[in-house]
Amino acid sequence: MTPELLLLIADRAGTFVFALSGGVAAVRLRMDLFGVIMLSFLPAVGGGTLRDLLLDQPVFWLEDTVVLAFAAAGGLVAFFAANAVDAWKPLRWADALGLALFAVTGAAKAAELGYGIVIVLVMGTITATFGGLLRDVVANREPLIFKEDIYATAALFGALVYALMAMSPATEALAFAAGGGAAFLLRGAAILFKLSLPKPRP
Amino acid sequence: MTPELLLLIADRAGTFVFALSGGVAAVRLRMDLFGVIMLSFLPAVGGGTLRDLLLDQPVFWLEDTVVLAFAAAGGLVAFFAANAVDAWKPLRWADALGLALFAVTGAAKAAELGYGIVIVLVMGTITATFGGLLRDVVANREPLIFKEDIYATAALFGALVYALMAMSPATEALAFAAGGGAAFLLRGAAILFKLSLPKPRP
Amino acid sequence: MTPELLLLIADRAGTFVFALSGGVAAVRLRMDLFGVIMLSFLPAVGGGTLRDLLLDQPVFWLEDTVVLAFAAAGGLVAFFAANAVDAWKPLRWADALGLALFAVTGAAKAAELGYGIVIVLVMGTITATFGGLLRDVVANREPLIFKEDIYATAALFGALVYALMAMSPATEALAFAAGGGAAFLLRGAAILFKLSLPKPRP
Repeated sequence: MTPELLLLIADRAGTFVFALSGGVAAVRLRMDLFGVIMLSFLPAVGGGTLRDLLLDQPVFWLEDTVVLAFAAAGGLVAFFAANAVDAWKPLRWADALGLALFAVTGAAKAAELGYGIVIVLVMGTITATFGGLLRDVVANREPLIFKEDIYATAALFGALVYALMAMSPATEALAFAAGGGAAFLLRGAAILFKLSLPKPRP
Repeated sequence: MTPELLLLIADRAGTFVFALSGGVAAVRLRMDLFGVIMLSFLPAVGGGTLRDLLLDQPVFWLEDTVVLAFAAAGGLVAFFAANAVDAWKPLRWADALGLALFAVTGAAKAAELGYGIVIVLVMGTITATFGGLLRDVVANREPLIFKEDIYATAALFGALVYALMAMSPATEALAFAAGGGAAFLLRGAAILFKLSLPKPRP
Repeated sequence: MTPELLLLIADRAGTFVFALSGGVAAVRLRMDLFGVIMLSFLPAVGGGTLRDLLLDQPVFWLEDTVVLAFAAAGGLVAFFAANAVDAWKPLRWADALGLALFAVTGAAKAAELGYGIVIVLVMGTITATFGGLLRDVVANREPLIFKEDIYATAALFGALVYALMAMSPATEALAFAAGGGAAFLLRGAAILFKLSLPKPRP
């Protein structure tokens, strides 16, 4: 599997699961069908869009509009299955998966352009967290990124593992899997065991 | 009338009416003169600015600063005539007009660059709705785009009618008028008859 | 001292003080260490980032990642010294200094690219105020830019003084000092004497 194909598959899977989270937020706001689809776009493509604007690259969905269909599909599923999603509450885990996937695709895009590790980490973190931040700011609720401990930190960690592996003789596919896995495991551990980083004393 | 001139006039008229809506929101927040003008800029040029950034085109007001004067004029009118505007309540209709104008100018810009119908529809909708979304997010109120039924949907519909006409032998001017008219009529009907799209069951 | 070096020093000093303001906001929201650093980035580099995107210039921190270290340092200081900062309340004055520095660096960047006075003023104001606006929108509090009288106005004034000086035979360094000084003095006077621009009648 080529790195390009890996990037493509991970981008689309991440797009769909992030769109689900936006769609569920929109359903809770009692938005109509088109509103649900629009709000599902923010987390689905918001982070990657900012990454591409910052890196002065063509915005990824301009030429690859199929990704927008994946985002719309996530919104539609949320619209028609909101009750099931509410009962099942997989949102946090779908979100953790999207976070992990976007962290490595964002980091990989910056690395491919030849940027150093600082920008690779920044782009991984932005790609993974900015879309969800947009979703929460627009839906006027406290950003999940601030409410949840070790959220953006997991994205940063995944990007870091990817970056270190990518500098090693490991294949791109292995770096991808290790980075994504690291982000997902750290985020999952934070959900299960309520891990947290130090907070300021009150 | 050339398509370029049509685009120019529609962009400026839309700029002024959207600036009015931002100015009125700012006056309600008790902002001072310069604050009112700044908040009037968000709906006036925010959507077109995002469109240009996404399409990697020069931001339209960098070379055409006259458009900023139209935005400032909208803010000034809102500042000095807030009471009249409040009594007269034309805000929804000015907003509907701006929505219709921006939907077709945004769609036309993407079409001119040779993009397919998906991107044409996305750019029409973004140009028409993103500025108002920015205005509402910054003014910390529930976005009109979510509160009002058939709002962004009207922009999408106008962009669609424009796109279909632009593919037909119709002149650009006719496509413009048909797309703008379709968006304005649908939005107007939604205001008058409280039309709405399906919503998720509670 | 060359204009380039001046721009560099002012950008970094402004970055640090703006990061402090973001860090303090994050500490008040009980965010964890990484969250504090992330929120400190928004005011620190948000305004300059938007300026560069709008002007179609390479985003300044992509090649100059040292600036991100200054932003992170501001966040760290806020994290570990939040109580001291709260007692000392220098936030408004640090903010006034960042406002003044960013207003002239933003104006200077547009002027160097050959833009006229309107765009020079717009870029000075955006660079100085947009990052703080982002900070407040994301932290879900009423934007300081709207709550405080003569805030963005001071940035505009500093950019104007810089622009007029830059057209005169004065050196770049003098224009810089005069513009920054003018913005800081006006903002400081507004803080001390509660100056305000006219507001709409209720």
